[in-house]
Amino acid sequence: ALPIWLLDLMIPMAEMTWSHVYLFRDQKHRGRCIVALKEHKDEIFQLSAEQRNGFFAEVSAVAEAIANLTKAGKINYAIYGDKVSHFHVHLVPKQVDGLQWGGPFTDTLPVVHLTDGEYQDLAKELLAELEPIAQREKLSLKAM
Amino acid sequence: ALPIWLLDLMIPMAEMTWSHVYLFRDQKHRGRCIVALKEHKDEIFQLSAEQRNGFFAEVSAVAEAIANLTKAGKINYAIYGDKVSHFHVHLVPKQVDGLQWGGPFTDTLPVVHLTDGEYQDLAKELLAELEPIAQREKLSLKAM
Repeated sequence: ALPIWLLDLMIPMAEMTWSHVYLFRDQKHRGRCIVALKEHKDEIFQLSAEQRNGFFAEVSAVAEAIANLTKAGKINYAIYGDKVSHFHVHLVPKQVDGLQWGGPFTDTLPVVHLTDGEYQDLAKELLAELEPIAQREKLSLKAM
Repeated sequence: ALPIWLLDLMIPMAEMTWSHVYLFRDQKHRGRCIVALKEHKDEIFQLSAEQRNGFFAEVSAVAEAIANLTKAGKINYAIYGDKVSHFHVHLVPKQVDGLQWGGPFTDTLPVVHLTDGEYQDLAKELLAELEPIAQREKLSLKAM
């Protein structure tokens, strides 16, 4: 289970073979998610080739689902986690000429939170996009 | 060849099977590099599985080389490129309790440039770390 302080930041959405998928609570970029490796690893080069290939296949599927739902002009991806021992990727959809388009996304702007119902609806919409992609790519997917 | 405006930002360092590796001119995070997919693709989900697996194996090798050289506490990774049609990853080494440790790296601070000789030395040191890793992982590597 996710520690309480992380539940403040993100909402469990799906379990895949190598990763958990979360909806990021700060939705100023609509559709922003986190894909987190299940195993405790800090750096990409600590993953086995099988694990790395499997993990990025799942990142790719989630990115495609977000792009389909949000019509993002570009997804930004970031891995920080200096002090967090789970390799995890932020997937941040950017709209053409929208917030922070053309520059790096940053977290310095005020957070935009949704209601619980809105988070649930968004998670359902993302899962509805992700399911056929996971099927096509033969990836395991369980809603959380 | 790299367009002039990109040569202002980065210095060609190595060619691998799927990617080119560049030293980022702004070295306020010492060892910062870019790994760029050779083919024009915008999003991770536009890569074939073979291309995605190959590309991230190369990203992983470069990250390991940077970590070995800089003794970074954590590498940060970012993919922005809203307006650039080459899927490319920034590899940004962070030092424990150093610049921007514990938060996302940003590019809002003044750039730190090196002399041409210092860039060459740094590129050589990184390549010297990368070569045995590429050999171990059976990855093609040509200095540029």
